[in-house]
Amino acid sequence: MSSSRPPKKFAASHQRSWLWGHHAVLETVRAGRWPVMELFADRTLNRDVLKQVTELAGRHGIRLELVDAKRLEQLSNQPDHQGLLARMGEFPCKGLPELHEIIGQTDQHQTKAFSAKGKKAKSGNLPKLFVVCDRLQDAHNFGAILRCCDAVKADGVIVGERSQVAITPHVARASSGAVNHLEIYRVASLSQLLEQMKEAGTSIVAASEKSKTLHWDTELKGDVALVIGSEATGIAPELLERCTLQVAIPMLGGVSSLNAAVAAGILMYECRRQQTHE
Amino acid sequence: MSSSRPPKKFAASHQRSWLWGHHAVLETVRAGRWPVMELFADRTLNRDVLKQVTELAGRHGIRLELVDAKRLEQLSNQPDHQGLLARMGEFPCKGLPELHEIIGQTDQHQTKAFSAKGKKAKSGNLPKLFVVCDRLQDAHNFGAILRCCDAVKADGVIVGERSQVAITPHVARASSGAVNHLEIYRVASLSQLLEQMKEAGTSIVAASEKSKTLHWDTELKGDVALVIGSEATGIAPELLERCTLQVAIPMLGGVSSLNAAVAAGILMYECRRQQTHE
Repeated sequence: MSSSRPPKKFAASHQRSWLWGHHAVLETVRAGRWPVMELFADRTLNRDVLKQVTELAGRHGIRLELVDAKRLEQLSNQPDHQGLLARMGEFPCKGLPELHEIIGQTDQHQTKAFSAKGKKAKSGNLPKLFVVCDRLQDAHNFGAILRCCDAVKADGVIVGERSQVAITPHVARASSGAVNHLEIYRVASLSQLLEQMKEAGTSIVAASEKSKTLHWDTELKGDVALVIGSEATGIAPELLERCTLQVAIPMLGGVSSLNAAVAAGILMYECRRQQTHE
Repeated sequence: MSSSRPPKKFAASHQRSWLWGHHAVLETVRAGRWPVMELFADRTLNRDVLKQVTELAGRHGIRLELVDAKRLEQLSNQPDHQGLLARMGEFPCKGLPELHEIIGQTDQHQTKAFSAKGKKAKSGNLPKLFVVCDRLQDAHNFGAILRCCDAVKADGVIVGERSQVAITPHVARASSGAVNHLEIYRVASLSQLLEQMKEAGTSIVAASEKSKTLHWDTELKGDVALVIGSEATGIAPELLERCTLQVAIPMLGGVSSLNAAVAAGILMYECRRQQTHE
């Protein structure tokens, strides 16, 4: 069986542009990264929330309109709007110049990040981890991958310009707000980028069912760029030929592959495990 | 931000009962596990596929009706039906008696399963791995978890009788057909079951952000039951208190948790990694 949900190529524009829900909207406005064009709040909203919204809108110079709940549902076609909607602009991905600044850079962040919340500390540097998304189609998968990239403190997520689901409100919600924290880059040519990363000494790692090397038996201790392929067609041949390592996640049952987000999560944490353990 | 999709409590009945698509339908009929009540095929379907469908329907005693494509879309409300629909009965989960037969059983399957496809072989037994789902709400997540359970050759997936998304055609498709291979059990009381598993010597493992022990620093080499909590509320207190180990997947960024299926996948593969490595 293939993936359960076909790519939603023709999603209505309201699905692309309306972010909904208290926490999602307030966090996004506060983060100040993703342009909010205007805010719509239910005039009967909880007084504290309404006060927060009004203050935030004022501080960020965003137009705020008080309306009734029915109007919010009409605008967003989203029944669980919780009384708050934001009309979003285009998500501001970074580009190649900003990415060049960090590829091969040596001031790596500290492994002590892994000691957060009183957990086991380790000294030394944490190598770089990039996640390259090759034409992901499903907003839920892409969001779950971004959420995981944030959890492993990936140095960057890189997407191409074509056939890749955009950073929409659905993706933002599935990412649990990770889009507000992560460095996300959009480049014209992923294959050129992989070539440049390879030259800078980064291992380019692809998950491939055909590989004879299991992921947990492969050394992934240095700087790594993980390439995650499209749910429908996997990694494009011109990217696969630029990978320096192909690893297989062992498949012991009847299915031949994992969900793209699950596979990406397993590989990201295996990289971080090796990078922080002897 | 919370999960991007609210639980679909009121999914229309066609969503619950119609399985669609060539591969999904044919594989499910062939597997012979999930009762197919009747088949509807597009009369203009590819001749080979139609021949396969007719033969399979005859062999399994399933009524087959040839209709036009429009009728298929009306029945299923599913535009990507690919000319083939199956009206499904209730998925036949196993119950407590069958589960008791394997808890604590000693004839474990062989690790050599991990040497499939010419990959590194290991001798010795593979400990048991159960996955206990506590009120999962999202069909896409549940399907991705089942797909991963099949990939690690889990000994059983166990769900409760209440507030858990059923095994629907959507779940089956998201599982990539794993529902046809896996052992799936449904029990009245998950907490009683965990108590019995604990008595049989199984470690009951919960992922908890509050734990000070990181999952990759916790010994998970023996028989393990992984408890996966509801996307909305996590693991229920009465189950959490029966867990013998609480482990945290390290979270280094701004988000406080992973998508449920991603977290489940990371923990399942960490168990299998430890169980197959020194």
